[in-house]
Amino acid sequence: MRVVDFIVKFLKQKKINDIFMLTGYGAMYLNDAVKLAGIKYYATRNEATAPSMASAYSRIKNKVGVACVTAGPGATNALPGLAEAYVDSSPIVILSGQVDYKQTTHSTNSKKIRSFGTAEINIIPIVKPLTKYAEIIKNPLDVKYIIQKAFHLASSGRKGPVWIDIPLNVQKAKIDEKKLKSYLPKIKSKINLKNNIKKDFEKILNLFEKSKKPILILGHGVKQSGKIAEIKKIIDLLKIPVIFTRFTNDLIPHNKKYIYGISGIKATKFSKKIMNQSDLAISFGCRFSPQFVGHDYQALSKAKVISVDLEKDELNKKGQKIDVPLRYDLTNFLPYFLVFLKKKKLKKFIQWNNHCRNLKKNFPIIFKNYNKKNKSKLMDLYYFMDRLGKISSKKNILITDAGSNYYIGGQVWNFEKNQKELSSYTNAAMGLSIPLSIGAAVASPKSTILSVTGDGSLELNIQELKTISHNKFNIKLFVINNGGYVSMHNWADTFFRGRRVDNPVDTGDGTLNLRNIAKAFDMDYFLISNSKNLDLKLKKINNNRKPLFVEVLTDNKQIIYDAYKDY
Amino acid sequence: MRVVDFIVKFLKQKKINDIFMLTGYGAMYLNDAVKLAGIKYYATRNEATAPSMASAYSRIKNKVGVACVTAGPGATNALPGLAEAYVDSSPIVILSGQVDYKQTTHSTNSKKIRSFGTAEINIIPIVKPLTKYAEIIKNPLDVKYIIQKAFHLASSGRKGPVWIDIPLNVQKAKIDEKKLKSYLPKIKSKINLKNNIKKDFEKILNLFEKSKKPILILGHGVKQSGKIAEIKKIIDLLKIPVIFTRFTNDLIPHNKKYIYGISGIKATKFSKKIMNQSDLAISFGCRFSPQFVGHDYQALSKAKVISVDLEKDELNKKGQKIDVPLRYDLTNFLPYFLVFLKKKKLKKFIQWNNHCRNLKKNFPIIFKNYNKKNKSKLMDLYYFMDRLGKISSKKNILITDAGSNYYIGGQVWNFEKNQKELSSYTNAAMGLSIPLSIGAAVASPKSTILSVTGDGSLELNIQELKTISHNKFNIKLFVINNGGYVSMHNWADTFFRGRRVDNPVDTGDGTLNLRNIAKAFDMDYFLISNSKNLDLKLKKINNNRKPLFVEVLTDNKQIIYDAYKDY
Repeated sequence: MRVVDFIVKFLKQKKINDIFMLTGYGAMYLNDAVKLAGIKYYATRNEATAPSMASAYSRIKNKVGVACVTAGPGATNALPGLAEAYVDSSPIVILSGQVDYKQTTHSTNSKKIRSFGTAEINIIPIVKPLTKYAEIIKNPLDVKYIIQKAFHLASSGRKGPVWIDIPLNVQKAKIDEKKLKSYLPKIKSKINLKNNIKKDFEKILNLFEKSKKPILILGHGVKQSGKIAEIKKIIDLLKIPVIFTRFTNDLIPHNKKYIYGISGIKATKFSKKIMNQSDLAISFGCRFSPQFVGHDYQALSKAKVISVDLEKDELNKKGQKIDVPLRYDLTNFLPYFLVFLKKKKLKKFIQWNNHCRNLKKNFPIIFKNYNKKNKSKLMDLYYFMDRLGKISSKKNILITDAGSNYYIGGQVWNFEKNQKELSSYTNAAMGLSIPLSIGAAVASPKSTILSVTGDGSLELNIQELKTISHNKFNIKLFVINNGGYVSMHNWADTFFRGRRVDNPVDTGDGTLNLRNIAKAFDMDYFLISNSKNLDLKLKKINNNRKPLFVEVLTDNKQIIYDAYKDY
Repeated sequence: MRVVDFIVKFLKQKKINDIFMLTGYGAMYLNDAVKLAGIKYYATRNEATAPSMASAYSRIKNKVGVACVTAGPGATNALPGLAEAYVDSSPIVILSGQVDYKQTTHSTNSKKIRSFGTAEINIIPIVKPLTKYAEIIKNPLDVKYIIQKAFHLASSGRKGPVWIDIPLNVQKAKIDEKKLKSYLPKIKSKINLKNNIKKDFEKILNLFEKSKKPILILGHGVKQSGKIAEIKKIIDLLKIPVIFTRFTNDLIPHNKKYIYGISGIKATKFSKKIMNQSDLAISFGCRFSPQFVGHDYQALSKAKVISVDLEKDELNKKGQKIDVPLRYDLTNFLPYFLVFLKKKKLKKFIQWNNHCRNLKKNFPIIFKNYNKKNKSKLMDLYYFMDRLGKISSKKNILITDAGSNYYIGGQVWNFEKNQKELSSYTNAAMGLSIPLSIGAAVASPKSTILSVTGDGSLELNIQELKTISHNKFNIKLFVINNGGYVSMHNWADTFFRGRRVDNPVDTGDGTLNLRNIAKAFDMDYFLISNSKNLDLKLKKINNNRKPLFVEVLTDNKQIIYDAYKDY
């Protein structure tokens, strides 16, 4: 058996039945083995999108996603998607082809050689800062150890991408499976879990009992822990307001008791007020990004902050003041904490809960359906996003892209029907809607993907529209046409008194004719030019099984509410 | 004056009048300063292409090219183009925006923080292995030192990209220009140049006089030294066969005496024979890539090899055997060597030169114009590329992309009218034709860009077609429609007995309708479906001033000659 045959066998054992892959000379044995093994492969049209497709796949399937690229430019093209997977902590494995080891820069140990073999580049040092683990297979007999280690690290602890580089001579090398050494993950002696954790539970409980206005903050770490059932029970026991980050907004429907959805600069005013007024924040798996707590960390200025997180450096960095930093993997912590809480009679916060409910009632997101009042005005994006959320159901996966729709989706969607959302959360990077949609469609063929992007963001990975139509993915791509780069215009108007710097679509003929774009990439086109019968149109689109490109005309002077300034 | 105003003033002093830039929040003061300074900015539609545009600009203008991107995903999107610039040694400067320094991961000194501020990523460690210099400006007063150092390193020695990351608080910081410290490049005591160099010249001359079949190899280092006039005079004195690499193929017209064009695997049979038979190779600025000398370094098996290069690690690596490694910067070396040679009476190699001339005559690249013989057959790409080369003139810049056209352009173009060529030389990366064309068009508005790409490569940066039409660049883009991924098919047929792995365009409906693509991106479309009146069509296209998208139908069973196997 060749090394590559062992790799695909391993993937199949891990029940990886799909892979995102652009073929190439440097990865030809890998490509061949994938085909022979009967793993379904989806060809991207630029390697940049492959890691993002694998990320979406990993989040929907709740397992590792895999991408395969070729050597040199194939590998470096994949870097933008890799960076996204890293900051969003997606558990993905990237396999890259490489030239024969003896003609790799890696073999020279030089930092001055820029390229050695044909289209060769030393990818490992480049991806090191963007991965949890990056290794080149030099010895064919290391393949099992390296791939086991890669899978383990990608999917345990704080999840994230890993990278394996495989030279052609290693790809095709014949191995005896019995002679391969294995990787045994270090069992982190569930450190003092039994001893210390009790003390820490007591510490939390003590502050909880002293508090008058406690809140619970749930960050991405909670999603990654997989302990969703446990966290729901913990909420039922604590009975205090629960705040989400942009990552966890779809964790629990917002109409459930105690759930107040996301907070942050681009969030709701009521959630900001709740954070502002609270005197204790118990946070699980949240890094307190400035978008979430304000650039000057003003959101939690009155609160004692307990943060449970497994990344020491996140607990110690000079950002949000953390009064009680507790380093635990939530996968272990949450089940024990639940057991602990069950035995306690907990303080009730009836008045505080009533107060928060009133805040929610009195400070809703306000939006106007301009069109209902005035036919000449363009549609408010708040109205469109709200209706899209409302008509969607459990069979839908919602996807947002950088800019207005990312912020507004976060503000108006309530996930009342347990819909899932995917986005470029940490970066709000432009252009991720399309690859995320494709990854989601592969992971969940029965879902209908309702994906929103902007006319600016559309362009960054526009080539993958053909991947959608070619594979007949059940994706409805809503392209918000607001004249382009609305967020940039808003910044320019704020910081430079309207002194705008040209961006791709600023001048008249810089925008694309979206109808022609849809046609060029073989997608059916639909236009929503106003809010008339919007629900009807959206339902019809949602019931269609074909890939659809839907242009949505909205207000080019769209205002996005800032919870820290507006209202 | 703000830090950003100092930067753009510096750029203008360096006569950088054009910049490739996608605006963004993290770079907003930079963007603003560029506009205020009146530097022309060209908006890319994905940051991935900006470094490649700057690279093309730098090669045509023979000065530093500059790109500007925003923080986080703006910076990581630019990595594929940066990698290209690095392996092709392009002197470019990339300016990236960044969040306030206190919210950068860089400020935490942690390798575990993945993102801190809004859409923030620690770009410096990622770009370190792909640049000659990468620095974040922490102190506003360091701006002059850092930008001077960056420009110096990018454009001296072995040229290459540099990266400067500029936090928002630094971008807008007010500075007193007089208080800025300057960078003074270390004058490399033209080491022992006067002492040793004479000995090395004598060493070369000694081997030259003993040799019977010497050749001169000119690599990219010669182009980068800028000593083109000197090298031409050296050729006139040595009077021996001159061989080019893919990088230097357009250095001197191939109809000039002693010039035999490129050698290598995908080159001509006569040039391989000349290398094979030579007993002495004097090489300037060449890294002896496997593509050039064969995967087993068989090309120069009978020759003593003298290599003059400034990169120690290139001289010492385990690749081509180098008998006399001489470490010099050709910028200094070539003028002195010329003076030295002028004083000598040199050996003549009449018989060897005659022999090589005969090889050239007897082993030409053979191609058939299928269409002239058989109307039903598709056009031979050799014929198309040959005619494109022939009808072009000094006003043209020729550009090739990965795959068939890259190899064939290298094999059939003779640059007899001093045309320049640009390509992704080291990597033959897919998709570079479009950004390279744009950079060339900006650098040389009077030139007509004749740019070739494949229907596979087209997709990787397809969004920039709109950049071409939007700016009305004088670019004729020839898109070779051979059914896609011909090179991949050839590999599959060679290595896997025809067991082909699907690539994006492999199945019937995977290919794009190119006429619709041209329309969608607002380019005029023209179809060349056969070789009838090809010269006439090409001349007409070349005389048109508008951007043109030209689909060229060619044989989907195209064979690319391999000088090491075929003939």
